[in-house]
Amino acid sequence: MPTVPDPASNKPSDAAGDGTQADDSFPIRQLEIFDNAKGFVDLLGQLSSCPPISDAYFCSRFAELAALGDDHVICVIEDPNTGRIVATGSVFVEKKFLHGCGKVGHIEDVVVDTTSRGRCLGQRVVRFLAEHARAAGCYKVILDCTAELRGFYEKCGFVEKNVQMAMYFHD
Amino acid sequence: MPTVPDPASNKPSDAAGDGTQADDSFPIRQLEIFDNAKGFVDLLGQLSSCPPISDAYFCSRFAELAALGDDHVICVIEDPNTGRIVATGSVFVEKKFLHGCGKVGHIEDVVVDTTSRGRCLGQRVVRFLAEHARAAGCYKVILDCTAELRGFYEKCGFVEKNVQMAMYFHD
Repeated sequence: MPTVPDPASNKPSDAAGDGTQADDSFPIRQLEIFDNAKGFVDLLGQLSSCPPISDAYFCSRFAELAALGDDHVICVIEDPNTGRIVATGSVFVEKKFLHGCGKVGHIEDVVVDTTSRGRCLGQRVVRFLAEHARAAGCYKVILDCTAELRGFYEKCGFVEKNVQMAMYFHD
Repeated sequence: MPTVPDPASNKPSDAAGDGTQADDSFPIRQLEIFDNAKGFVDLLGQLSSCPPISDAYFCSRFAELAALGDDHVICVIEDPNTGRIVATGSVFVEKKFLHGCGKVGHIEDVVVDTTSRGRCLGQRVVRFLAEHARAAGCYKVILDCTAELRGFYEKCGFVEKNVQMAMYFHD
C-alpha cells in the first residue's frame, strides 16, 4: 500500500520518480495481461518485496482485479524504445456510508524504474490515478508515503493529513 | 477513511473509544441491513460529515458492500439495553501483485459513541477488524489516524509507519 519503497529496505528514496522533465512520448495506459512479460512485477520489486509470479498466478490476480472494473485500476507506462514497463501505480475506490454514501480513492504502489527517473513519470502516474478517482465520484483521494516523499506528493497537489499505523502478520 | 474524527471538526478526540474497562456484555457482530434504524449512520456522524441516508439508499450501498463478501466487512456493537449501535469500524481487503500477490487489510471509520466510552469498545472493534484481515490472509493491516490517536492504536498492536497525504475534490 505505501506509495514508497519499503522503509525497512535500502531501496532508492526517489521511487516515485520525482523528475523535472515531462516526457509525453511515454504513453500511460491501464495494465494489460501481457505486462508480466514486460517487467511489471520486476518493477514492483523496486518498491517492496515482490518475488517473480508465474503467468498463471499473474492471470488469476489480474482477473480478480479486472472483475472490480473501475473500482480498481492499475496504470503503467511502457518505454516505447525497450517495451519494458518503467512506471506504475494503482488506485482503488472504497465505498462508504460516510459523506452521504461517499467514495474515497486509495492510491497504492507507485514506482518509477531507477533508469527512467527525471522524466516526471511519477507525477504523470499520480495525476492519472487521482483523475480516475475524481471521475469515479470520489470526494477525496489518499495515499501513504514516507516523510521524504511528502514534497513530491505536495507538488502533485496533496496535503499532509494524518499518520499511518500498521500491524504486520508476516513479511 | 481516517479512523479518527475529522481533524477539521470539533469532534471529540477519543472517537475510537480508548477506554479502560472491557465490556463483553456488548456483543460485536457484522453490520445488518436494519442497522440504519438503530443509529448506525448517526454514529458515523460523530466521526465526520454523515448526513442522514434514506433506507433505500442505505440498502443500495449495503448490497454493494455485501457483494464484496469477506473483502469488505463492517462490524458494529449494539447496546443491548438501548438497541442502539454504539461502536463501529470497517476493514477492506486490497489484493496486490506485491508480496507474491499478497493482500493488505485497510481499517477505516472506527468510532465509539461518546456516551459509551470507557468500555474498551474501540479496542474490541479494532481487534475484530485486524483479526478479520489476518484470517483473510493479509500480510499486514493498516490505518490512518491523527497523531493524538497513535497511543490508542499502539495499545492495539500497531506501529507508526508513514504519513498520510490527501487531495480533496469536494467536502
